[in-house]
Amino acid sequence: MTLTLTPIGLMHCDLLDPSQAPKNYDESTHSGTLEIFAEFENGLKGIEAGHTIVALFWLDQAKRDILQVYPRGDKSRGLFGVFATRSPMRPNPIAVSELKVTAINGRNLTVHGVDVINQTPLLDLKRKI
Amino acid sequence: MTLTLTPIGLMHCDLLDPSQAPKNYDESTHSGTLEIFAEFENGLKGIEAGHTIVALFWLDQAKRDILQVYPRGDKSRGLFGVFATRSPMRPNPIAVSELKVTAINGRNLTVHGVDVINQTPLLDLKRKI
Repeated sequence: MTLTLTPIGLMHCDLLDPSQAPKNYDESTHSGTLEIFAEFENGLKGIEAGHTIVALFWLDQAKRDILQVYPRGDKSRGLFGVFATRSPMRPNPIAVSELKVTAINGRNLTVHGVDVINQTPLLDLKRKI
Repeated sequence: MTLTLTPIGLMHCDLLDPSQAPKNYDESTHSGTLEIFAEFENGLKGIEAGHTIVALFWLDQAKRDILQVYPRGDKSRGLFGVFATRSPMRPNPIAVSELKVTAINGRNLTVHGVDVINQTPLLDLKRKI
């Protein structure tokens, strides 16, 4: 079974290479702009500055055929399965971030807590529970 | 741009229809079994009973062409964009759940907090931050 996704937007930020990206959103001091494509703009109604939102990204530079990793490159603890980690490497390279919306201009959201690089495709936004 | 996903497993549980599913994992009292397909079993190393894990599911029965909804069917607050909600309806119908692992038998994980129906495809598991 193959399932297909279509990006709903793009991240614009100053992180240009995966080596620059924070390991996770809770360690990020970076801001950026989430551009939502025009055809999906109506889906934003109800998102307001000050909200924290869940964002799903497609990590298009991540390897998909690796099932075990050394978390954060630390070999002292041995190999872990990717499903026990937050490694970008995994069969379906979808990242889950929590971002704080600091401003909204039409279909561009200024967000804080960015842990993905510039031009990363956005798949979804959700209310944080 | 079209991106492709491949399921890594399946949920087995007693929820047979979307109308029976809890609105969110934090409201669920249901348990189930996550079957991880054999080719992905090595990715589980390090997941232990007692862990809470983030699970991404593909909501294969959800409509993808709806951008605004009445949250929980409550029309009193008006329409919201799907990206401001946890509605299963959204362009890329990926659900994010947090499940407690209560037992592991090979590549079958018994989990608590199930909010998806029987046979829902599993896309990913992650460490909870």
